[in-house]
Amino acid sequence: MEKTVAYLRDHRHEHLDWVRDLCRIPSISTQAEHKGDVRAALEWIRDLCARHGFQTRIHETSGHPLLYAEWSQAGDAPTCLVYGHADVQPAGDLDLWDADPFDPLVKDDWLICRGAADNKGPLLAHIRAAVAWLATAQRLPVNLKFLVEAEEEVASPNLGPFVEKHKDLLACDYILISDTAMYADGWPTITYGTRGICYKEIRLSGPKQDVHSGGFGGSIANPANELAKIIASLHDADARVTIPRFYDRVVAPSAQERELVASLEFDEQKFVGELGSPAVFGETGYSTYERRTCRPTLDVNGIYGGYMAEGASTIVPGRAGAKISMRLVPNQTAAQIDHLFDETVRQRCPKTVRLEILDHGRCDPYMTPLDAPAIRAAERALTEAFDHDVAFIREGGSLPILTMFKRVLGVDSVLMGLASPNCKAHGPNEQVRLPDLDRGAEAIARLLSYLAR
Amino acid sequence: MEKTVAYLRDHRHEHLDWVRDLCRIPSISTQAEHKGDVRAALEWIRDLCARHGFQTRIHETSGHPLLYAEWSQAGDAPTCLVYGHADVQPAGDLDLWDADPFDPLVKDDWLICRGAADNKGPLLAHIRAAVAWLATAQRLPVNLKFLVEAEEEVASPNLGPFVEKHKDLLACDYILISDTAMYADGWPTITYGTRGICYKEIRLSGPKQDVHSGGFGGSIANPANELAKIIASLHDADARVTIPRFYDRVVAPSAQERELVASLEFDEQKFVGELGSPAVFGETGYSTYERRTCRPTLDVNGIYGGYMAEGASTIVPGRAGAKISMRLVPNQTAAQIDHLFDETVRQRCPKTVRLEILDHGRCDPYMTPLDAPAIRAAERALTEAFDHDVAFIREGGSLPILTMFKRVLGVDSVLMGLASPNCKAHGPNEQVRLPDLDRGAEAIARLLSYLAR
Repeated sequence: MEKTVAYLRDHRHEHLDWVRDLCRIPSISTQAEHKGDVRAALEWIRDLCARHGFQTRIHETSGHPLLYAEWSQAGDAPTCLVYGHADVQPAGDLDLWDADPFDPLVKDDWLICRGAADNKGPLLAHIRAAVAWLATAQRLPVNLKFLVEAEEEVASPNLGPFVEKHKDLLACDYILISDTAMYADGWPTITYGTRGICYKEIRLSGPKQDVHSGGFGGSIANPANELAKIIASLHDADARVTIPRFYDRVVAPSAQERELVASLEFDEQKFVGELGSPAVFGETGYSTYERRTCRPTLDVNGIYGGYMAEGASTIVPGRAGAKISMRLVPNQTAAQIDHLFDETVRQRCPKTVRLEILDHGRCDPYMTPLDAPAIRAAERALTEAFDHDVAFIREGGSLPILTMFKRVLGVDSVLMGLASPNCKAHGPNEQVRLPDLDRGAEAIARLLSYLAR
Repeated sequence: MEKTVAYLRDHRHEHLDWVRDLCRIPSISTQAEHKGDVRAALEWIRDLCARHGFQTRIHETSGHPLLYAEWSQAGDAPTCLVYGHADVQPAGDLDLWDADPFDPLVKDDWLICRGAADNKGPLLAHIRAAVAWLATAQRLPVNLKFLVEAEEEVASPNLGPFVEKHKDLLACDYILISDTAMYADGWPTITYGTRGICYKEIRLSGPKQDVHSGGFGGSIANPANELAKIIASLHDADARVTIPRFYDRVVAPSAQERELVASLEFDEQKFVGELGSPAVFGETGYSTYERRTCRPTLDVNGIYGGYMAEGASTIVPGRAGAKISMRLVPNQTAAQIDHLFDETVRQRCPKTVRLEILDHGRCDPYMTPLDAPAIRAAERALTEAFDHDVAFIREGGSLPILTMFKRVLGVDSVLMGLASPNCKAHGPNEQVRLPDLDRGAEAIARLLSYLAR
């Protein structure tokens, strides 16, 4: 193992180039025009795996394709399945980026570009660990399978069907995933729970086109004003979601969890300072840390309507809409919340405008047992590689695949996050801390050995 | 006069070409990139006037320039000042137009393009009338002055100062304006009141950039959700504006006015049918016609924030904003309402987001006496030209110059609208009805003669 770890240290510049090359591909799965780039990113990873002795295959789906790669010469040793994704979020407003989001920039210890943290850098840490084993021992301690999808950012519509169809191919003892955030830079972290999500869009329309606000203002309902009323009605004065029965199935954190939370440092002033918000805010009765991990939410992700450009235009908008997503916690289900949301919005929408509700994906919340052997092995590997104890946390984000893997393959996932809490995933200037990627690759190399025993 | 009217009829195709040529110039005063086009539109009108014997001059301002043109060889005859504007609103969403907004399209009796109705077509009707007199009588019955500005769509910031500075040059007995709508197609209309406007923009900011809604949702205020709450709070369940003291100075219509309103046909079903709205809507206790003419309003003209493109992006927006305008009626003043709005929004905005309030122009409401001699002369000219009695109405839109002309020049304005109620001003497929422009030019030719006596 020492040789493997040394190899990783010696080759980190070459491995950084891998991350940069992959991040140059704008594999935005949410936008149809990037379909070719999404495939190109998968092919890039396929070629890397194939070059190092993996058997690979790109599988077509009705959406973006999937990559499967395996090395299965470890005989009776256990089998690990590594999951990752090659697709990324849109870059958003380019003016807010310090550099081209698809021209990776190294600045001090950081790599800045779209996909650096979510999920290209962390995914490649697993491949680096495998390559290091193969280069130094000509074998891996375990049988290793890679499953890389390209629809994570659009809620993985084809991953579930694929896993169902290929459950023998994907059979494994452990699932390893690095697509979560660390608790702090340099502080290795295991995430044992993720929130679910239910993402909706509501569109209101009134006059068949924008009309003069002088000639018509006061005579018909304004879709933007009505939209604001509906959105405002979704929270009460305690910042609780007002959708009836929204909280019915929410489970409070266990005593063991409360202890783990208490052991973590959380500096609220630093937190809002880094974000730039004037203050923390949220549901009455819960700490900020609890609200972003153990409590469900409802957020407008985008809102639009009428004249949005420079200056003024005196119109009553013909239409207005909002993208609204809810983060969910055990034991809420996305299907139940989806239904309650639609029902509530339909009820609250006045008859003076037309309503359309769109779906943009959903997934259930997830929890993994804290005392599983794989979790303990991962704790040891991370502690050694980072020379730091491990933080156990729940993540506010969603990983749609976790409940699916559990259901279909019968295996819980070990989530070893390698992204900084300040990684700006989904936002401008997304970044990843290079020492965390390097130590992460080392921890994974160690873990493969520990899981073999 | 008969020869003048005949001349107008004989030359209507040539005159239609004038309208088309002027409308081809995208003189959008609200967008900096169209600065040159705005000037080009003024120069086009200048050249037309100069070619027909007017003395012309383009005056510079700190914004867009102004055109002044005069013909003053009528000796002791009265002097008429015609006001119009050469600038237009942005085209908005091009997908909603049936044709290029700046490539005029004639379809049956209609001319479809940006500026056709607001205000290039109606303004040119006045020039056509003057040209017809000069061609047939080699003189005008009155001294005639044209004042054409290019900042009407941005609330005329430089017109007032210009008129103040040149009040001797602009001295006149009557002011004629055609920048209002007709009550119905073919039904000549005099507008004796206009609503004022106060146009604001509020911008809320939270985190310094968009952040992941999984990682941060629930921990900080969401600017789009907070924006919705503020907007929703601005109306009560009776659709009345909740800004304290908003209605304090509102004057109810007189008995004479109520009679005029009662004499007009207003088909509510046809009205919403043409607009495409599912139903009429507005302040409890007033008819639809009253709400759009005699009552003040508050409308969102545009709303924006976060991810507004195709698909989904799971972010808490860094900022969100809304353009909000209020239409005002006598005796509200724009300055008073502006102050009340700012005060109310500041009070209702929580400290968990940052607030910025922008101004996009304002103007006071206006009323002209119904029994003025010029109004009676205009009624006669319109009745003869259209072979139809005249509708007297209040207009829901705003004409910022009316109170200013009254104050500085001491003269009330005669508003003879030539735009269809279905002209779609400010919206896609703006259009003007050609027979109304032709008869309008004829009515103006007649009016110049009646005012001379």
